[in-house]
Amino acid sequence: MARHMERHAVLRERLIDSAERTIASKGLPALKARDLAQEVGCALGTIYNVFPHLDELVLCVGLRTLASLEAALRHQLAEEPIKDLVRLALAYLEVAAAHMMRWRALFDHRMSEARPLPEWFVEQQHRLFAQVERPLGALLPELDQKARAILARTVFSAVHGVVALGLEEKLVSLPLPDLALQLAATVRAIATGRDALRAIDREESAADLRRN
Amino acid sequence: MARHMERHAVLRERLIDSAERTIASKGLPALKARDLAQEVGCALGTIYNVFPHLDELVLCVGLRTLASLEAALRHQLAEEPIKDLVRLALAYLEVAAAHMMRWRALFDHRMSEARPLPEWFVEQQHRLFAQVERPLGALLPELDQKARAILARTVFSAVHGVVALGLEEKLVSLPLPDLALQLAATVRAIATGRDALRAIDREESAADLRRN
Repeated sequence: MARHMERHAVLRERLIDSAERTIASKGLPALKARDLAQEVGCALGTIYNVFPHLDELVLCVGLRTLASLEAALRHQLAEEPIKDLVRLALAYLEVAAAHMMRWRALFDHRMSEARPLPEWFVEQQHRLFAQVERPLGALLPELDQKARAILARTVFSAVHGVVALGLEEKLVSLPLPDLALQLAATVRAIATGRDALRAIDREESAADLRRN
Repeated sequence: MARHMERHAVLRERLIDSAERTIASKGLPALKARDLAQEVGCALGTIYNVFPHLDELVLCVGLRTLASLEAALRHQLAEEPIKDLVRLALAYLEVAAAHMMRWRALFDHRMSEARPLPEWFVEQQHRLFAQVERPLGALLPELDQKARAILARTVFSAVHGVVALGLEEKLVSLPLPDLALQLAATVRAIATGRDALRAIDREESAADLRRN
């Protein structure tokens, strides 16, 4: 039984390694169970003994990508909250640019059959966002934990948008250093104009926002 | 010859209509030339007489999506630049939420074989961004036309990031009105902290940004 478990664990790691290599070199759409089985040298059915569905395998690769992103962000030393936010954004851009395919797969992947994301994946997302919550909490100490968590995801999303459309070169083609300047300026503007973030008030409706 | 041209134009429109329906109901990955030919009632090869490659058909659908986005944004009356920017962002969120699949296809689609985007598509993108450049130019009148154009795309990208990750419910699941509040607050913060946008200086390198 112990040997069976061990073989299972080894095969699992080899499948994740192989999927990660495919995603990194050819992108998520190129990932096919049949090719994986061939590369790892197992039967097609064996993959589904290890991973109940291919989504879980993709998420295991995603978990590694999230962990390396988190490590890159954690590495940004706490100094002064606005500088820290800028550094986090630039580190995010750097990692995304260096590992474009794996980073892209993290966002392109959608769970089939509307399965929810597993808890272990969501927890790794939380650890990533905790890095953004830290300087944001220092900038806006009056926010409660829930509001800070939501706002950290919003600021992350804004940064992600600038990085994603910038790296895809869809809307404007900028050299990476110029994209970094645009990103840094955007984050600084958000941080400098943070009084507007404070003002998020549940009493104010979207309809009011459009009128006022 | 005239009748041939006419039939060609009619078929072209019918193919775009059919592709648009498929994308709107099932998403971009469901778009297959074989199904289109069947729905429109033409031979598979005929599609490629009208559209040299399927990318062009997808871009024709994208052009309509861009045009409806632009129309929705243009509709936001010019009043006061910060309010206008907030209104533009909220209108963008509204259109994206209402036409999720078509809007998503606009960003998911990638040209095969690294073909460049055709000029007519890029021009429609420009018309869309012109809506953002207008209030941004009012807020930052000292920016030259090129800097304003780039900054408009950056601000658009930040808005797009909040809208995209919010609607995908990947990172945080917020009801649409709360997402609208987060978006409005982010845009207001960027606009309020615009001195940081002014400071984009080509002398300052990304390396300096991380140190300072």
